[in-house]
Amino acid sequence: MSFQLHPTLDADTHLISIMDDCQILLMNDARFPWLILVPQASDVGELYELSEQQQQQAYRAILRISKALAQHTHADKMNVAALGNQVPQLHIHIIARYQTDAAWPGPVWGVGQVERYSKIELEQTLDRLVNALS
Amino acid sequence: MSFQLHPTLDADTHLISIMDDCQILLMNDARFPWLILVPQASDVGELYELSEQQQQQAYRAILRISKALAQHTHADKMNVAALGNQVPQLHIHIIARYQTDAAWPGPVWGVGQVERYSKIELEQTLDRLVNALS
Repeated sequence: MSFQLHPTLDADTHLISIMDDCQILLMNDARFPWLILVPQASDVGELYELSEQQQQQAYRAILRISKALAQHTHADKMNVAALGNQVPQLHIHIIARYQTDAAWPGPVWGVGQVERYSKIELEQTLDRLVNALS
Repeated sequence: MSFQLHPTLDADTHLISIMDDCQILLMNDARFPWLILVPQASDVGELYELSEQQQQQAYRAILRISKALAQHTHADKMNVAALGNQVPQLHIHIIARYQTDAAWPGPVWGVGQVERYSKIELEQTLDRLVNALS
């Protein structure tokens, strides 16, 4: 059975790349440099439910992506989180945070209103991230 | 130089055990089964700043602890997160969530007022967790 991205994630994000069998997605919220990493494993909601190989692949991708995004954005802090209270499909948020951002020092979830990227901003952001993360 | 737990973590938590060179702490907030895992590495704020050995130890501990806490609590969902916007020392939250808890479906940070365990509740909870996680 082929892997299907959850419809909520599909609606809220854009694909940047696939790495270590994980989809690397850009959250469509221009307020934060916000990536979501989704291991391509069906019917898995928790990290520990992945196979051992998938666990290692996911961890490697989390470390690589969070380091590359930190360097690319010059963030003050990275936030890495697997929550999934609203979308049960396992997904890991990797968010570059600034002391000046709209939610600091709180977490970003549920804060204020999402600001969608314009079409041109989205294209440019995806281009930059494809380069920064490769 | 020996490892020193950050004073805020020290004030808010109680030690359950040490596993894979990580301190496993109980957050003193009776509203949620809430553990905090702290790799015993000085001056590290991000997962990717750990040495490769420490990264593997931390990941192994995260997976073990989250699975054991999920089984012990019969939680609906586990939340695993490295945020650190307020306390810079690397620490990973591992929280058992219920659809009936005080913050569901939002994240727990900054929600409502902390409810401290009573002395007897704290002792009992620590005892149970030492057994459940060992």
